[in-house]
Order: sequence, then structure tokens, then C-alpha cells
Amino acid sequence: MPNINEYLDQNKGRFEEEFFDLLRIASISADPTYHDDVARAARWVAGQFERLGFPAEIIPTGGHPLVYAESPRVPGAPTALVYGHYDVQPVVPLELWTTPPFEPAVRDGNVFARGASDDKGQMLTHVKSAEAWLAVEGQLPINLKYLIEGEEECGGQGVADFVEKHRDRLACDCVVVSDSSQFGPDRPAITCGLRGIVYAELLLTGPNRDLHSGSFGGAVANPANALARMLAALIDDRGRVQVPGFYDDVVALTDKQREQFASLPFDEAAYLAGIGASALVGEEGFTTLERLWARPTYDVCGMWSGYQGEGAKTVLPSAAGAKLSFRLVPNQDPAKIIEGLRCKLAEVCPPGIRMDLTVHHGGRGVLVSEDSPYTQAAARAVEQAFGAPPVYTREGGSIPVVVLFSELLGVDVLLLGWGQSDDNAHSPNEKFSLADFHRGIKASAQLWEELASCPTKGS
Amino acid sequence: MPNINEYLDQNKGRFEEEFFDLLRIASISADPTYHDDVARAARWVAGQFERLGFPAEIIPTGGHPLVYAESPRVPGAPTALVYGHYDVQPVVPLELWTTPPFEPAVRDGNVFARGASDDKGQMLTHVKSAEAWLAVEGQLPINLKYLIEGEEECGGQGVADFVEKHRDRLACDCVVVSDSSQFGPDRPAITCGLRGIVYAELLLTGPNRDLHSGSFGGAVANPANALARMLAALIDDRGRVQVPGFYDDVVALTDKQREQFASLPFDEAAYLAGIGASALVGEEGFTTLERLWARPTYDVCGMWSGYQGEGAKTVLPSAAGAKLSFRLVPNQDPAKIIEGLRCKLAEVCPPGIRMDLTVHHGGRGVLVSEDSPYTQAAARAVEQAFGAPPVYTREGGSIPVVVLFSELLGVDVLLLGWGQSDDNAHSPNEKFSLADFHRGIKASAQLWEELASCPTKGS
Repeated sequence: MPNINEYLDQNKGRFEEEFFDLLRIASISADPTYHDDVARAARWVAGQFERLGFPAEIIPTGGHPLVYAESPRVPGAPTALVYGHYDVQPVVPLELWTTPPFEPAVRDGNVFARGASDDKGQMLTHVKSAEAWLAVEGQLPINLKYLIEGEEECGGQGVADFVEKHRDRLACDCVVVSDSSQFGPDRPAITCGLRGIVYAELLLTGPNRDLHSGSFGGAVANPANALARMLAALIDDRGRVQVPGFYDDVVALTDKQREQFASLPFDEAAYLAGIGASALVGEEGFTTLERLWARPTYDVCGMWSGYQGEGAKTVLPSAAGAKLSFRLVPNQDPAKIIEGLRCKLAEVCPPGIRMDLTVHHGGRGVLVSEDSPYTQAAARAVEQAFGAPPVYTREGGSIPVVVLFSELLGVDVLLLGWGQSDDNAHSPNEKFSLADFHRGIKASAQLWEELASCPTKGS
Repeated sequence: MPNINEYLDQNKGRFEEEFFDLLRIASISADPTYHDDVARAARWVAGQFERLGFPAEIIPTGGHPLVYAESPRVPGAPTALVYGHYDVQPVVPLELWTTPPFEPAVRDGNVFARGASDDKGQMLTHVKSAEAWLAVEGQLPINLKYLIEGEEECGGQGVADFVEKHRDRLACDCVVVSDSSQFGPDRPAITCGLRGIVYAELLLTGPNRDLHSGSFGGAVANPANALARMLAALIDDRGRVQVPGFYDDVVALTDKQREQFASLPFDEAAYLAGIGASALVGEEGFTTLERLWARPTYDVCGMWSGYQGEGAKTVLPSAAGAKLSFRLVPNQDPAKIIEGLRCKLAEVCPPGIRMDLTVHHGGRGVLVSEDSPYTQAAARAVEQAFGAPPVYTREGGSIPVVVLFSELLGVDVLLLGWGQSDDNAHSPNEKFSLADFHRGIKASAQLWEELASCPTKGS
């Protein structure tokens, strides 16, 4: 695509100017003070599509609006749905920013501003790539649908409701999301797996009030002791979760995947230093990356009981509670895990203690095959733009919208992160490499070409 | 002692008036607002001794003063040290009091006021009994020393410092304390055992900040998980504490003691209903009273980690902590238990977790032989005054000052509670039965007579 790449090179300066324009809009979705700025960012994004000649809609939700656009129909060609978000994280603590968060400043080849990497810059790459195709070729090689939301950083339900209601309208052959990171500098990545989650809260109740630990201790069931016992019973010495059936449906890593994980330059010492821990631990028989990306977990996220103040209070607490997170991997079923958890906890709950288990949420993990034609198309595009083949990584966290696309649209979700893990996405001095911005646009333009030869369900 | 009992009967009304005068003084030691009232109560108590012709001192401490007095020397007779306190608990929540806490009101034979049972009424019985002896016989049959403090309810160090410094001055053959309860109505008790305590705080640290449980979960040691595991490891399924050497020095109950405990009318259903629990639990092989009075315990008094708010936060906490109470029985040594605890925790502390153990306090248990001549003297006195022999009970809690007397003065401490367990000692509507007040005075007067024939170390 020499002509397209030429166009991209010629327009670098203007692309950056437009990118910076968007960065100047303080579209903090979590803070009502910025309501008008969020709306302005939505209009700015819609304006980009209109300039391309794509009919764009600003779709109201219960919160901030969605921007939806479609490229002109290319009959018979595959369809990709691009997802991104135009809203940004809050900027506190403001005093830690070197330059103001909404005045983009370039230093050492990076642009510093809130939203630079997450997700304005990354999202924009897929708009500018379309512009290049239209300018040079007069048309796109595939069909593009864009769904750009404004509530990603504030947990809004708008996009979920929309996807659920408009599955037909959003029908596509794959989804493209650039809202994550490369594995490292000059080491682009395709994220092929996300973990799912079961998040539950356990509440134990013993006596009807806090009792004196001297007068009652030894004869009355203590919910704090019971909590320790029950939480400890959920995992064994080898780091294996003791929920019945927990591992039944886990998709095991193939030898090839384990080799590939092992070949990644993972610096354990740097990782340890970064979190200030003295040792890495976890399920026996697995490496750190395997534990993080491909194995399910059990973490206590919070716990409380009795007296937490200074000094000593001799109390036998009336209640104790804990928040539990189980990270799931494909194909674990959250409902089945919750049922097993309930059984196990009931089994180990001691006499004299009442147990209540509340499930806050559950979601499946997502796995995209490295061998899928869409993944392979993305790999070729990334390699051409970045000069290196992407590594196939996974992510230990969950991204609800990706699960949504995967489950409701039934297609592969291509997670093509152009950012870096030190972009300070939710911290002061967020940045995005301008080189990565431009390589992202090139990769995106190339991706449309590569996807054109992929199979399509038609529509 | 017909004449003395006659005197007591004749003076009932005046004794009550004087008792109520003391109750009208709002001697709340924990609240600086009441500083002058506390001082006034000390002067009131000192005034009582002066009227008996006992030289009385008001002894300043770092906090509220001690009142100290001695009866005129009776050569060759044994010496009893009476301990009590003139300060009272706070009165919040005031709106739950039927009548104001410092306006004594008599209802159904009880006087309602803060401090009625704890400890003004009980303490005063040992003053009025001396008055009767002096009025009727012109002298006491034994030597009495009185140490009445004003910081019992606020944890002041004054009395401990004084006892430590003035062991010679306080030298005696036994200590008499009335600051507890009968086993039930018309069922007087002598408390022959108190448990000791080790109270410690465990702090676990993992990563240097709270981490995302998705991005890091499975590979990083979680201090909340570790806390559950470590706390659970301190006790087994049969309720046996797993600290090395924990039971080595425990004085086992004799068959006679177990029979005697078993013969007490302990209503398990009522006990359960009172605390709203569904079952009583504890160390295998022991009854509830044995567990409460004669067996050591392990209770988690508080615990905390990570997110404790509403809903879900997917955090892998940086730290977790717990407060631990071990109730000890004679002859367990707190220092040895702390050492064993430290060893055990270090043994079960998982890799990647730093552990800090702080000991807040430790104290030995106290055991007074039922067969000691002083206990037997008290039993005879109680039976004569109450018309029923006392039962020998123990108390699961610790009373630091009793441990102090036991250890520093090396004598038996007679815990003769005239109160009832429903006297609301630290709650609104505190009360004391006037019948018990007068029976307490009679028992005290009889006690001086009975102690006169006990062995004495001389002085």
C-alpha cells in the first residue's frame, strides 16, 4: 500500500493537530462538572465521521452518548466493528502533572495529556486509517462500523444496553479494539485472552452483638475465627482452589502456547521490584505469565471484623465479612463456580455461624484463537507497520465490553494495543508515543486490507 | 454476732442515704469534664474513713487519686486489704435511662444509678461493716487496709504504680474485692479463678500498594489470603490451639472441680438466647463452663484488609491485619505463649509476605484455692449473711489489678461479688439490689470475724 502509506506520512502533522484538538476536550465522564465537555467530545468524534462521509449518529443513553457510524457499503466484503471510547479518567492529583492534563505537550516523542493513550489516540488511529483509504483509493476494502462510547471510564451501562438491543445492526465478522498496550517498546502484541470473574461477598454472623472475649471466649462461635478458617479452606498448599469442579472446564494451555509464553522477555526481578514484593507465588507447576494469563485464581479483595482501631479491645465480634474475587479462564462457567463456592463454604461453615453469600458479578473469560484468520490478518498488519511480528499475550483482568461483543455478536475480538504499559493510563502524566500513534494508523490501514481477504458471514 | 447484726438492721436507712449521697457524685473517670466530680468522690470516700477514725490519705497519681486508709492496729491479728473503686463508667446513651443516672431511684427493691453495683455499693459494704464493729465492739477483730481507686473504668496506671512501689505498706494476709456478681439471685459465689491474657496484633504486608486483582492475581502473594491461612493454622478442627507448648503448663481441672462446675445450674438454652447464637462450640471434651472458666482460648478480636465498602472493588490488598486474644489459665506463662505464637506464625507465613507481630499486653491467670483458710472463712461469712453456701465459680475475663495483688503481694485474692449479672454494670439503668447491699455488709462484718482466726504472716 505505498500510496496509502505515503498519504499517512504526508499528513502526520495534521493528524497530530487533530489528535491534540481532541485531547484539549476535558471529557471526564465520572465528574458531572464536565458534562458539557463529554458531549463536546462526542460531537467532535461524530464530526470526524461526517467529514469522511460516514453517516454518524450521536445516540443518547442514560449517561453519556454513544457515537455510531458506518462506512459506505462494500458488498460481499467482510465487516469489522471498531470499538473505542472518547471519555477519559479524572485528573486528580493535579499537582503531580508536569504540564496541564488538557494542554497536550510533546516531550521526547510522546504527547502528554489525559486520554492520550486511553483511549483517544488509539481510537483515532482507526479513523485516520479510513480517511487514508478514502483519500487514496476512493473507497474502503471492507465494511466498517464504529461504536465509540463515552462511559468506559465511569462504568456506564449505555454501551451494554445498546449492544444487547442492536445485535443485528452491529453484526460483523470481527471486532477491533485498540485500548491496551504492547508487550514492550517496539514489541507489539495481540491480546488473545482475557480472564473472566466471579466476585462475591461473604458475611458471617455469630452472636447478636460484640461480646467480651474474656467472658465468652472459648464457648461461643467467633465469626472472625470462622472467616479465617473458611477462607483458608478455599485453597490448598499448592495454590489449587478448593471449589468443587473449579478446574473441570479450564482450557489447558497447549505446549505451543506455553513455549510462546516462555519465550517472552518477562523480567521477573523488575516485576518484583515494581510491586515491592519479595517473592512471586501461585499455583504450583505454572510460570508467572501462565498464572497471570491462563490460570484461574482466588484472591481475598477485602475483609473485616470486630475491632480495627489502635491498641487492644477484647471483643468477640458479632460478624465478619470478606470480598472474594475468582478470576476465571475459558471455559469456566461463572454460574457453576458460584454454585461450587456456595457448596464448599456451606460445607466448611462451623456450627453457630450463619453464612450469607452475595454474588456481585460474574463474567466469562474470552479467548481468541491465534490461528483465526482475523487474528492472522491482524498479525500481518501489525508486523508490516511495526516492523516486528506481534507477540500473543493475554490479560489477567476482565474487559466487560469485550465479553459482551464475544458473547452477543459471536465473533473474534481483536485486541490490538498500540500503547505502552508505562503510559500512566489512569495516573498523572498520561502519555502516548507519537511514533506508536502513526504506526497504529499504518497498522490499521493495513488491517483493512488484510481483513478484506478474510471469510465473511455476509449480511 | 447478734449485736452487730442488730446495729446493721437499725442503720439500714442511714446506710442507704449515705450510699445514695455517693451515687449522686458523677465520678466518670474517663471524661475530663467530670474531673471535679471524681475528686469530690475521692474526698467523700476519705471522709467515710475519717469518721471511723481511720487515718485516710488522698494520694495523687498521674490521673485520678487513690484513697488509702488503715484501721487501728490490732496486734497479732491477720490483715485484709480491701480494694474497690469510686469512679464510674460513662452514661451514654443517656436517653435509654429510665431515671437520670446520678439521681438514685428505688424501684422493686433495686436502686438505679450509675455506679450502684459497679462499684460504689459493693465497695461501701466493706466500710459500713467496719463501722458496725467499731460502734458495737469498739474495735475490729482484724487489721484492715483500704485501697480505693478512681481510674478502674478508664484503665489508669495509678493503682498499679502504687502497688508496685508500696508492697511493704500494703502487706496483708489476703485481699478482699467486691466488684463482681453472684452466680444468680440468692446464689452467692466466690470467684476462685480468673483467666490471663495475651493480646497481640498481626500485620502482614505484601506488595507495596493495592494491586489490580485481575492484572496481578495468581502470581503475587495476597496478604489477605495469607492472613486467613495463618489465623486458621492457629487452631485445629477439635478447637485445640496450635501454638507450640500452648497446653504444657495448663493446670487441669480436678474431678471434684469438674463435678462442682457440672452441679451448677447453667441454663444453656437461656445462655444461647441471651447472645442470639445457634450453637455453643469450643474445645472438644469440655463443657461450656469448663471452656469459659478453666480452658485457654484463641479469639480473633478484629481483622481488616483491602476494600470494605459497598459493592465490588477488584483489589489485591497491600496489607492485612488482625488482633488476637488468647485467654490463659493458670499456670500458662504469657511470655512462653508469645514466643510459641511467634514461632508458629513464622512457620506458616507464606513466601512473599512480611509479618510483624506486636504484643499489646500479657498477664497470667489467677487461681485461688477453694480450700485456702481465707476462702473458707469467706464461704462461712457469705453463707451466714446470704442463707446459702456460696458456689465456687471462675471468670473468663482478666482483672489486671487482681493479678497485680496476687503476683506482687503473694496472697489470696477473695473475689466476693454481691452484684447480679443483670445489674447493667456498663449499660444504661445500672442497678443494685438493696437486699444484696445489706447482705453484703453483713457478710463483710462476718468476714472480719472469720478472718480473725486465719493464719497470719504477721507484720
